[in-house]
Amino acid sequence: MEIYGDSKSGNCLKIRWTADHLGIPYRWIELDVLKGESRTAEFLALNPAGQVPTVILDDGRPLAQSNAVILHLAEGSALIPADAYARAKMLEWMFWEQYSHEPYVAVARFQVKYQGKPVAELDPRLVERGKAALQRIEEGLMETPFLVGQGPTLADIALVAYTRVAEEGGFRLADYPKTQAWIVRVEQAFNIA
Amino acid sequence: MEIYGDSKSGNCLKIRWTADHLGIPYRWIELDVLKGESRTAEFLALNPAGQVPTVILDDGRPLAQSNAVILHLAEGSALIPADAYARAKMLEWMFWEQYSHEPYVAVARFQVKYQGKPVAELDPRLVERGKAALQRIEEGLMETPFLVGQGPTLADIALVAYTRVAEEGGFRLADYPKTQAWIVRVEQAFNIA
Repeated sequence: MEIYGDSKSGNCLKIRWTADHLGIPYRWIELDVLKGESRTAEFLALNPAGQVPTVILDDGRPLAQSNAVILHLAEGSALIPADAYARAKMLEWMFWEQYSHEPYVAVARFQVKYQGKPVAELDPRLVERGKAALQRIEEGLMETPFLVGQGPTLADIALVAYTRVAEEGGFRLADYPKTQAWIVRVEQAFNIA
Repeated sequence: MEIYGDSKSGNCLKIRWTADHLGIPYRWIELDVLKGESRTAEFLALNPAGQVPTVILDDGRPLAQSNAVILHLAEGSALIPADAYARAKMLEWMFWEQYSHEPYVAVARFQVKYQGKPVAELDPRLVERGKAALQRIEEGLMETPFLVGQGPTLADIALVAYTRVAEEGGFRLADYPKTQAWIVRVEQAFNIA
């Protein structure tokens, strides 16, 4: 498998962590999104949406969307709960991540860390929704050590990717103590450095 | 099953169409998001994210996120391809829908139809990205009648929900002829009026 990814992108790292955890070999091809390397004709032929990560499976077929890729790689593994309801809750977190977490927590980080915007100048709506997303995770960890039950699932990989670097976007993780402890737990479970 | 939904929301209708197609009985509880009915304490107890649709399964447990719900309802049915790669491509479309289609095509429609904003005053970035999303669907239909192969899948339900009403947000579906034909095909396959 080849992974076209940008190491600055949590979405790309989700795939690396999942593959490493499952012992799936891959070749990582680093693209710099900021330099337009995901918009070249060569790359658009692999993924017309021009988005990283994009993987080329062993049979040569492409697959995109980080959460779709990790669901594919982890099929049949313990990272996807066998119980139908737990599996559905895992998917609920994963779709919520792309719609209600990434567009705020990751975008704030991108603007601050990679575009040099001062935290004080972030769109207040972006900050407010980012905080709401972090609070939602905090509440999701009130009763269980991982987002879906007692063990790590793809929901934890999907959500930890940008949560662990939320401070780079000006968020204060100390305000979310259960989330802080969960980040450590997930990093340990997946050997994330 | 109870579906808490707002009939104005394509995300909510996805669940109705899937349940109808599969013959799954349900009670529809109409909430008006514009009137704040998804932000009441009673509703937040069901879904802390305060988002419709939210379903209460037969055993009383809640589930949210439209695409997670239809994946749960359709498990084991022909709406989810048996082939692993086709299934992954279906998920790719579904995650892409929530990240790169709904935030533009549905949001433009919401602003025009429900907030009364003139099409000419829409944020140009919103319009540009909405058009790019529609073009991406058009290209996805070049070789097959449905988004993933020869038969309808959950990808078609997820994508048709806001694409079929894109003109309410000022987009011109006549610019996307394969998409127009696909909308009719999907509406017929799922008895969408």
